[in-house]
Amino acid sequence: MTALFNRTHAGQTALPAQFQEAMSALLEARFTMSLPVREHHGKDESPFGIIAPDAVAFVNSTDEVAAVIRLCGQHRVPVIPFGAGTSIEGHFLAPHGGISLDLSGMNAVIAVHAEDLTVTVQAGVLRKQLNEEIKHTGLFFPIDPGADASIGGMCATRASGTNAVRYQTMRENVLALTVVTPEGKIIQTGTRARKSSAGYDLTRVYVGSEGTLGIITEVTLRVFPQPEALSAAVCAFPTVASAVQTVIETIQMGVPIARVEFVDALSIRAINRHDKLDLAEMPTLFFEFHGSASGVAEQAETVQQIAAGNDGHRFEWATHPEDRKKLWNARHSAYFAALQLKPGCKAVVTDVCVPISRLAECVTATDADLQASSLPCPIVGHVGDGNFHVIILIDPHKPEEREEAEGINARIVERALAMEGTCTGEHGIGMHKKEFLRTEQGDDALDVMRAIKRALDPMNLLNPGKIFELD
Amino acid sequence: MTALFNRTHAGQTALPAQFQEAMSALLEARFTMSLPVREHHGKDESPFGIIAPDAVAFVNSTDEVAAVIRLCGQHRVPVIPFGAGTSIEGHFLAPHGGISLDLSGMNAVIAVHAEDLTVTVQAGVLRKQLNEEIKHTGLFFPIDPGADASIGGMCATRASGTNAVRYQTMRENVLALTVVTPEGKIIQTGTRARKSSAGYDLTRVYVGSEGTLGIITEVTLRVFPQPEALSAAVCAFPTVASAVQTVIETIQMGVPIARVEFVDALSIRAINRHDKLDLAEMPTLFFEFHGSASGVAEQAETVQQIAAGNDGHRFEWATHPEDRKKLWNARHSAYFAALQLKPGCKAVVTDVCVPISRLAECVTATDADLQASSLPCPIVGHVGDGNFHVIILIDPHKPEEREEAEGINARIVERALAMEGTCTGEHGIGMHKKEFLRTEQGDDALDVMRAIKRALDPMNLLNPGKIFELD
Repeated sequence: MTALFNRTHAGQTALPAQFQEAMSALLEARFTMSLPVREHHGKDESPFGIIAPDAVAFVNSTDEVAAVIRLCGQHRVPVIPFGAGTSIEGHFLAPHGGISLDLSGMNAVIAVHAEDLTVTVQAGVLRKQLNEEIKHTGLFFPIDPGADASIGGMCATRASGTNAVRYQTMRENVLALTVVTPEGKIIQTGTRARKSSAGYDLTRVYVGSEGTLGIITEVTLRVFPQPEALSAAVCAFPTVASAVQTVIETIQMGVPIARVEFVDALSIRAINRHDKLDLAEMPTLFFEFHGSASGVAEQAETVQQIAAGNDGHRFEWATHPEDRKKLWNARHSAYFAALQLKPGCKAVVTDVCVPISRLAECVTATDADLQASSLPCPIVGHVGDGNFHVIILIDPHKPEEREEAEGINARIVERALAMEGTCTGEHGIGMHKKEFLRTEQGDDALDVMRAIKRALDPMNLLNPGKIFELD
Repeated sequence: MTALFNRTHAGQTALPAQFQEAMSALLEARFTMSLPVREHHGKDESPFGIIAPDAVAFVNSTDEVAAVIRLCGQHRVPVIPFGAGTSIEGHFLAPHGGISLDLSGMNAVIAVHAEDLTVTVQAGVLRKQLNEEIKHTGLFFPIDPGADASIGGMCATRASGTNAVRYQTMRENVLALTVVTPEGKIIQTGTRARKSSAGYDLTRVYVGSEGTLGIITEVTLRVFPQPEALSAAVCAFPTVASAVQTVIETIQMGVPIARVEFVDALSIRAINRHDKLDLAEMPTLFFEFHGSASGVAEQAETVQQIAAGNDGHRFEWATHPEDRKKLWNARHSAYFAALQLKPGCKAVVTDVCVPISRLAECVTATDADLQASSLPCPIVGHVGDGNFHVIILIDPHKPEEREEAEGINARIVERALAMEGTCTGEHGIGMHKKEFLRTEQGDDALDVMRAIKRALDPMNLLNPGKIFELD
């Protein structure tokens, strides 16, 4: 698997001259074969090397996407959709060459239907931008992967984040998509109705398809009223197990908690340095409660009791908006803070998700495994969903560290699958987890996925080489 | 369209003798060609005539389903999965002959993982049975279509019901399926993890596929803690518009209401007769609040204020469990109560769902349209989702009444689509709404569905003739 990522790709496929001419005629300077631009589009946030596309096309509209896709079809040129470039599983790499289709220019919020709690946006809109633009309506969009990802990319990887325990994931919060099919047709996959039984669930065929079935150009999302009251707290625990047990009991009691994040002692050290905080360097939970004033107070009271029963320390409250923001910025920057623990390092990030009853066991066994490693391995996690990440810090110039990291990852996945969990809670498969997907789903289920892929993209032009091998 | 339903089918395709022998060898007396059994399996709760399958196979396990499907493939015999027989869109009719695959014997609750809030059941388990069997764990499964449907059937039509406003629909509450593919392979579509980004969302490819892509034999569902407190109330309103406006404001304020159901004056009359109640015969909302004791009180207070602002009468509370049960039984029996308004009648039931901001306009315009009809047309609805049903009562022996009902239905659908809604919120397409689906989705989106169908079921043996035409 490693071999795939080892070379710097600097143009393997000569794009047909006629294709180049047609693309230049269509997009003018927005079609480019400049090496720096290609290299920027041939890497992601992962430690994998660059595998650059042969050209990059910057598109501004669904019609332009359709025109590009038709040209790609005519000339058999692969297409890799590109949003904010924040994938960590090799989604943008171009092992089969072709063009990167950059949708970042499609960044308009098209419609805000505040009265229906829906918005429609172009795929290149970033999640923070969306929340800025709808703030004045009293609404917010809760899905928040660590990076400031694009909404289209978040659809493509079925992303989630810290709010999923209450507000769920992209799977549940996308109402409809505009998609350009591999033949260059433009379809709508749904309506603005909150629910529907109208035929196959095309929306969810494309959500999570990682750009392999169609190009998502517009997205209709559910949004939510900003809670009337909101409070946040951190609580330190003597052990990983006691922190995780607190989460398990909270979920099992049905407390409608908005966020509950686990951050291990090493991550706290990284965060303290990066964000100039002085949190106790112990296994810690970050909590957030949303609701009415009395509802929030009640939830907080219940969770404090559960935490106390598990030897949790006193809750440290962040009630002022600026304190709360500081706290959650620190949580969101955990990944970047972790990178600073080892100068010049890159991270291999694991992403398993297990049934909540197995979470303490899975995290504890993982923690024990990590003790034997020479690599720094901070752990953070959306533990309310049973999802956690080990951020394995490696020197990208030392293949043996990469290998050790992949070994840790493989053992975590094996552990999670044995506990009826999944190899990826929110990051997707990309190029990196294809073998894990096969183990998780089995060959027969994978054959169903492949049959869908072949039916919708018979020439295998959309993001080829991702999710599974076709042959 | 009407012509499809006009004949009583009494065996058009002679099943191959070898197939009959092999099926009898496999299932013994559980494979039958008895006419009454076939006719029972060739009709549903709709006013459409019987179109019976050529035989019925009663299966007891996933392996048996796989064996039957392989035989059907060898002999090119169509297969129509059958659960509780409660469809109302012609899902079970056999216009291409073949066998009905009756899964009602697969009615075991396989596993209850109370600590993970999941259960795994065989597809033939009925929704009321499931709730009986898990009651002692303190959990419940909220999805409640009017009929006591099977969980497999509810998956197949992407069902919902009165609790969907808070607990959502089958789309969101199915974690994983066991599916027998048209080649007779057995696959798992997911794990028990709460979220996953592991490849295409096969679970949601099958949820809503109406038995046309694979046979669902086992289902892993999310279940929920029974709320600590629970209260229910009814409130009468002077007009349809004022009732619906109350719902719109409740949803827009983000009140986490568990149920809010609209029942029009004519439906109240029917319910009063059927359930021996004496509710005011006016447009009425049925409410239910779930949460902590103080949370429920707070929600109820907020909604009462909204209702008062819309000229709602005083709330009539049903706080005792038996009163609450009586109230909701009455709401659930609205369909059967309505049938008694017109002795010997059958119902054509509409099922549109619109964005909530358009709901008052859609219901009011529909109400005005119904005034011009000679047919009794009570209205009920899951209005918190923007979904409502007109129960159009027709004499099945008078084609002109059928025609009038279909005209009303077509106008309601047209109205809903113009308001960015869907032709079916929860009943599915079946044979009845194929043309509406085409209008709603467009030919290009329908072509994507057809491509998926052809890829997964190339011989078109699974429930042929449903959702769309293949040719």
